[in-house]
Amino acid sequence: MSEQVDLAAHAAAAAFRTFAGSAPALRARLLRDIADGIEQLGDALIDCVQRETALPAARISGERARTCMQLRLFADVAQADAWSDERVDAADAQRAPPKPQVRSRLRPIGPALIFAASNFPLAFSVAGGDTAAALAVGCPVVLKAHPAHPRTARLVAGVVDAAIAACGLPAGVFALLDDPAHETGLAAVRHPAIKVGAFTGSQRGGLALWRAAQLRDEPIPFFAEMGSVNPVFVFPDMLRGNADAIAAGLHGSMTLGVGQFCTQPGVVFLVDDEAGRAFADKLAALVAATPAGTMLSPQIRASYMEAIAARGIAHDVRSLARVAVDSGQQAGAALFATDAETFVRRPDLAEEVFGPTSLLVMCASEHEFVRCAQVLRGQLTATLWLPPAAIGASSDLIWALEQKVGRIVFNGFPTGVEVGTAMMHGGPFPATTDCRFTSVGTRALLRFVRPVAWQTPA
Amino acid sequence: MSEQVDLAAHAAAAAFRTFAGSAPALRARLLRDIADGIEQLGDALIDCVQRETALPAARISGERARTCMQLRLFADVAQADAWSDERVDAADAQRAPPKPQVRSRLRPIGPALIFAASNFPLAFSVAGGDTAAALAVGCPVVLKAHPAHPRTARLVAGVVDAAIAACGLPAGVFALLDDPAHETGLAAVRHPAIKVGAFTGSQRGGLALWRAAQLRDEPIPFFAEMGSVNPVFVFPDMLRGNADAIAAGLHGSMTLGVGQFCTQPGVVFLVDDEAGRAFADKLAALVAATPAGTMLSPQIRASYMEAIAARGIAHDVRSLARVAVDSGQQAGAALFATDAETFVRRPDLAEEVFGPTSLLVMCASEHEFVRCAQVLRGQLTATLWLPPAAIGASSDLIWALEQKVGRIVFNGFPTGVEVGTAMMHGGPFPATTDCRFTSVGTRALLRFVRPVAWQTPA
Repeated sequence: MSEQVDLAAHAAAAAFRTFAGSAPALRARLLRDIADGIEQLGDALIDCVQRETALPAARISGERARTCMQLRLFADVAQADAWSDERVDAADAQRAPPKPQVRSRLRPIGPALIFAASNFPLAFSVAGGDTAAALAVGCPVVLKAHPAHPRTARLVAGVVDAAIAACGLPAGVFALLDDPAHETGLAAVRHPAIKVGAFTGSQRGGLALWRAAQLRDEPIPFFAEMGSVNPVFVFPDMLRGNADAIAAGLHGSMTLGVGQFCTQPGVVFLVDDEAGRAFADKLAALVAATPAGTMLSPQIRASYMEAIAARGIAHDVRSLARVAVDSGQQAGAALFATDAETFVRRPDLAEEVFGPTSLLVMCASEHEFVRCAQVLRGQLTATLWLPPAAIGASSDLIWALEQKVGRIVFNGFPTGVEVGTAMMHGGPFPATTDCRFTSVGTRALLRFVRPVAWQTPA
Repeated sequence: MSEQVDLAAHAAAAAFRTFAGSAPALRARLLRDIADGIEQLGDALIDCVQRETALPAARISGERARTCMQLRLFADVAQADAWSDERVDAADAQRAPPKPQVRSRLRPIGPALIFAASNFPLAFSVAGGDTAAALAVGCPVVLKAHPAHPRTARLVAGVVDAAIAACGLPAGVFALLDDPAHETGLAAVRHPAIKVGAFTGSQRGGLALWRAAQLRDEPIPFFAEMGSVNPVFVFPDMLRGNADAIAAGLHGSMTLGVGQFCTQPGVVFLVDDEAGRAFADKLAALVAATPAGTMLSPQIRASYMEAIAARGIAHDVRSLARVAVDSGQQAGAALFATDAETFVRRPDLAEEVFGPTSLLVMCASEHEFVRCAQVLRGQLTATLWLPPAAIGASSDLIWALEQKVGRIVFNGFPTGVEVGTAMMHGGPFPATTDCRFTSVGTRALLRFVRPVAWQTPA
C-alpha cells in the first residue's frame, strides 16, 4: 500500500470524531470559505485548468461558478442540519413492558474516498459536488486527483487546506492523493480506515473500484456514476414547426464540451417518415459543420477515435456525417444511423461512446420506441420531445423509461444538470452502482450518512 | 432455474406497473386487510406455528400482534405517502439559459425478493416487516418461504393472496416460493425481473445471496441483516444496588426465545473487581437454573451445540455455567468468561453463537472497555449500563461504539426491538450488507425505493 494512502486515511480517521462532532455552522463556514477561496484564485485557476484540459475559458469560468454555487447550496443544507432526518418515538412508562424512548438521526459514515472526474476539473474534482456533500455531513475526505489535471488539483487543495485551518479543524479533514497510478486508487479503496467511496468516470474504472470495495474484509458503500447514452425520443408531432430548433438544441447538447458529458445524448430515436428523415438530414448538416475540438486527454481522444472508426465500418450502421481531423490532438463530431431492428439486436450499439457522436435509430413508428426503450440498460436520463397533450397516450413509453433512468426530460436536453434540491443524477446499473442515490443535488449528501439510534428507558 | 421462480418473477414484473401506480389508500387497505386476515386465522395460525417452530403459544401470539401492528403502521405511512420525499425546484424563465422545473420523488424499485427468517415465523416471514415495507411503496413481492415453517408460510400466503384479490390488484403482486432448496433462493436472486432483495438470517446465507446479487449482469441492492453479538458494557457504578435487577434482565434478554434473536447479547464486558465478579456469579447462577428449551430447527440446535462445545474447551476461556440436556431436541443455556487481553487477541470470540449463550469479558478497568469496543466488527446494537451522569465521561466509548453499531441502548436490553418511526435495526458490516438502511421501523421502506426526477421546460 502506498505510504501516501496510508497517511491520508489514518489522518482522516483521526480527524473524523472532531469533524463529525463539529457544529453545523462550522461545516457551513468551511464550505463557504472554500467557495470564497476558489473565487479568490481568479485567473490563475482559469489559466491552470485551461492548460491542463484544453477547455475554453468560458466553460471553465461557468464550471467555477457552478462549483461555488454547489458549495454554498450544500453549506445552507449543512447549516440548517436539513439532512438529519431526526425522529423520536416517545417513551411510554404505562405500557407493559414499558416502552423506551428511541431517537435517531442520520450521522456521517466515516472517512470518504472521492475520485476526481476527468471531465469536470472543478465541479466534480477536488472541491466538487462529492467533496461538498461529504464535508457537509462531517465526513473527512481523501481525494484521488485525476491524472489529467494534477496542478489544478493542487491549487484547489491548497484552498481547501487553508479553509480547514481557518476554521480550526484538524488537517486530516482533507487529503489529496496526487500519485497518478490506478493502483493508488485501488489501495485507497481497500484501506480499512476508508468507510465510503464515490466516483464519476468510466464504466471500467467505476466497476473495478466498486468491486474492490465489495471484496474488502469490511465491504463499504461505493457509489460509482459511470455515464450512459441518454436516449432521446423525438415524436413526429413535435417536428412540425419545431424541427430546426430541436435539431439545433440537440446538436448543441451532443457536441457541448466536445461531447464529454455523462448526460451527452448518444442515441436518438426518430420515426422513419419524411419529417424524421428531413430532421436526420438537418442534424447531419449541423454535425458536419461542427468545428473539431480538443478532448480532455490523449487517452480519451484515442478511445473516441477507435470507437467511431468501429462504428463507421459496422454492418447495418450508416455514417451520416463525420468531421475529419488532421491534428493528432483533435476530435471531430460524427453522426450515425441504424434501424430499430438492428438496435434491438445489437447491444453494442447502446454502449456509451464518450465524445461528440450520436446514433440515430430510425423506427417504423412511435410504437417501436417502446420496444427500443425496453432493451436499454440503466441510464442517467431519457429525453422525450412530444406535445404535452400526448403524454397520456405515451404512458407505455414513459413507464418503460422510468424503469431504466433516474431523470426524464420533457422537451429539453439532458446536458446542463441543474444543481438543486430535487435533482436526480443517478440511475439503475450500469449508469451507477446504486440506483437509490444521486451524485448531483442536495440528495447527494445521503450517500455519506447512515442512521444511528439511541434508546433510553421510559 | 426453477420454473416456480421464473413464473413468480415474471408475474411480479407484469404486476409492477399497476401496483406502482395504485393509490396510496389502496396499498394501505391491502396491508390492513392482510393484518385483519392474519387475526382472523385465529388459533389455527398459532397451532400451526407452534407445531413448526416449538415456540410457546404466548410468544407466537405476541409475534402475531407485532406483525399486525407493523402492517398497520406501514399502512398509515403508505396512506399518507409519507415516504415520498417529494421535491420541486421551480422553473425560472428569466434566467439565462432558462431554468427548467425539476420535480422528483421516491418511487418503488421493482419486484422485491424477500427471504423469510427462521426465527420470526410471522414478524419477518411471509407478511412480516420486509413484505409490509415493499408492499407499502408498491413493489410486488416474491417471498422465499423458510424451510422450517412451510405450512405457516402457506397459511399466511393464503391471507395475502385473498387481500390482493379483495383489493382488485393483480395476483402477481405476491408469490410464495415454497421449494425449500437453497438453489431456489439463489435462482430467484439471479432472476433478471427481480430488482431488489432483503434477507434476515445467518451470515453465511446472507453473504451468499448478497454476492449473487452483486454478480448479476445487472447488480441489484440486496439488504442482508445477518445478526451480531450485541455487546453489553456494565459500568461498576451501576452495580451498586442494581446488580440483581441488571443480572435478571440480562439473563432474560440472553435466554429469551432460547437465545434465538439477532439482538441477543452475546458478549458482556464487566470490570474484574469484587462487584463485577459477584455479578458474574449471579448471572452464572441464573444461567445454570435456566430450563432447557427447544430450538427452532435441528440444524440450528446442532450448530449451537457445536459452537458451545468448542467454546467450552477453548484455551483462556472458562465455563461458568452450562445447562445439561439429554433430549436430542433441546438446548441448554451456557455462560463463559475470558479476559480483555484474550478477547482482543482472538476475533473468533467476537463471532455470533446463535442461541442462549454469552461470553463475559472481565476487564482490568473501564478503560479497557474502549479497547475492546475498537476491535468489534459491525453490530446491530451496543448496550451501556452506566449512570446518566457518567455519559459525558464515557464519550470515548460511546464514540467508538457509534462507529460500530446502528443502535445504542442505555440502561436497557437489546432484545425487544420497538417498531416505530425512529428505530434503526441495521449497522455496519457484517451486521448488515449496507449500513445506510434498517430492516425494522418505517425507515425500512427506504430499502425499496429510488428517486426519479421529471424535468419540464420553463
